[in-house]
Amino acid sequence: MEGNLLGQLIDALRCLPGVGPKSAQRMALHLLERDREGGRQLSQVVGEAMERIGRCRRCRDLTERELCAICADSRRDDRLLCVVESPVDVLAIEQATAFRGRYFVLLGRLSPLDGIGPEELGLDTLEARLDESPPDEMIVATNPTVEGEATAYYLHQMAEVRDIRVSRIAHGVPLGGELEYIDQSTLAHAFGSRQAFTPGR
Amino acid sequence: MEGNLLGQLIDALRCLPGVGPKSAQRMALHLLERDREGGRQLSQVVGEAMERIGRCRRCRDLTERELCAICADSRRDDRLLCVVESPVDVLAIEQATAFRGRYFVLLGRLSPLDGIGPEELGLDTLEARLDESPPDEMIVATNPTVEGEATAYYLHQMAEVRDIRVSRIAHGVPLGGELEYIDQSTLAHAFGSRQAFTPGR
Repeated sequence: MEGNLLGQLIDALRCLPGVGPKSAQRMALHLLERDREGGRQLSQVVGEAMERIGRCRRCRDLTERELCAICADSRRDDRLLCVVESPVDVLAIEQATAFRGRYFVLLGRLSPLDGIGPEELGLDTLEARLDESPPDEMIVATNPTVEGEATAYYLHQMAEVRDIRVSRIAHGVPLGGELEYIDQSTLAHAFGSRQAFTPGR
Repeated sequence: MEGNLLGQLIDALRCLPGVGPKSAQRMALHLLERDREGGRQLSQVVGEAMERIGRCRRCRDLTERELCAICADSRRDDRLLCVVESPVDVLAIEQATAFRGRYFVLLGRLSPLDGIGPEELGLDTLEARLDESPPDEMIVATNPTVEGEATAYYLHQMAEVRDIRVSRIAHGVPLGGELEYIDQSTLAHAFGSRQAFTPGR
């Protein structure tokens, strides 16, 4: 309507995931009418982030430095290495757990049909790292999807030939979940992976 | 976690309405991992919009020019003037209706308790415009809230002393709505405002 710049602003906001025409319109008018300072800040930070954020040389996580904050932190435990699919997983684990080891970010999962093989996931970098400074334990935290499982299997092989202990995060009924509403495959998996019950542990 | 730039990016995205910490995180990673070009574009357009978009001198709508596209369009009908609360309303009316008249954007509604009086809504500008080039009809499209109604009443007075016909957009049961689920005040209003039924008109 208004054409030009307002229209362009609405269009540009639609590149954000989950933002359709109506939300983009609301966001544009919010910035223009109520939060120009926030908009200026947003423009500046997004621009800078797009230019400066790259990959950590060691763990492939997103960072604007050569080494990410976790890799650069000498207080973290080198004996534990957690392998995840994406940078969001690192954020989620850092926020939810007390894990103080290191990470390796695959940036994807093995998916030969999409042309994603071991090289695309930086598994050569990971292999070099396992040879150079092998951790005591490698925790595989890929997602419990078909590709995630295949990736976990591949990672397991890599660690096994090097005599590194491998663990996989537990999958089953989420806390607060009700058996009645859980999907069948999760319930079947939870049943199959039942563990000795030792109250008070 | 990652600190610095990624954290700043996530924070900056939260200035958008309806964006909480999780969505901001998802947006940041989407831009960084999948759409850097979109992010650059977003940064540039938002920055430019924040600096350059102001108000139309004539109708107070948002525009980067002195006159907005609608006010500058000589093909639009000067005899119809539609008064709305906000620039979104102009977009909504333009998208939904075949209205080809002019607009006046109040940028708010009368709300004495919040210190919003006739001056804040530019009603002096509107009065000058009604004196200078009176339209045949003024369509009041403020929202059907208490303040919107008060504003509509005030606008009606302004037009009446100048012998300008005033109309108000219809309020009632929305098309496709079911009486059973409509709120009581809307239904009462729709009942009270019933009109002669002339099929085929």
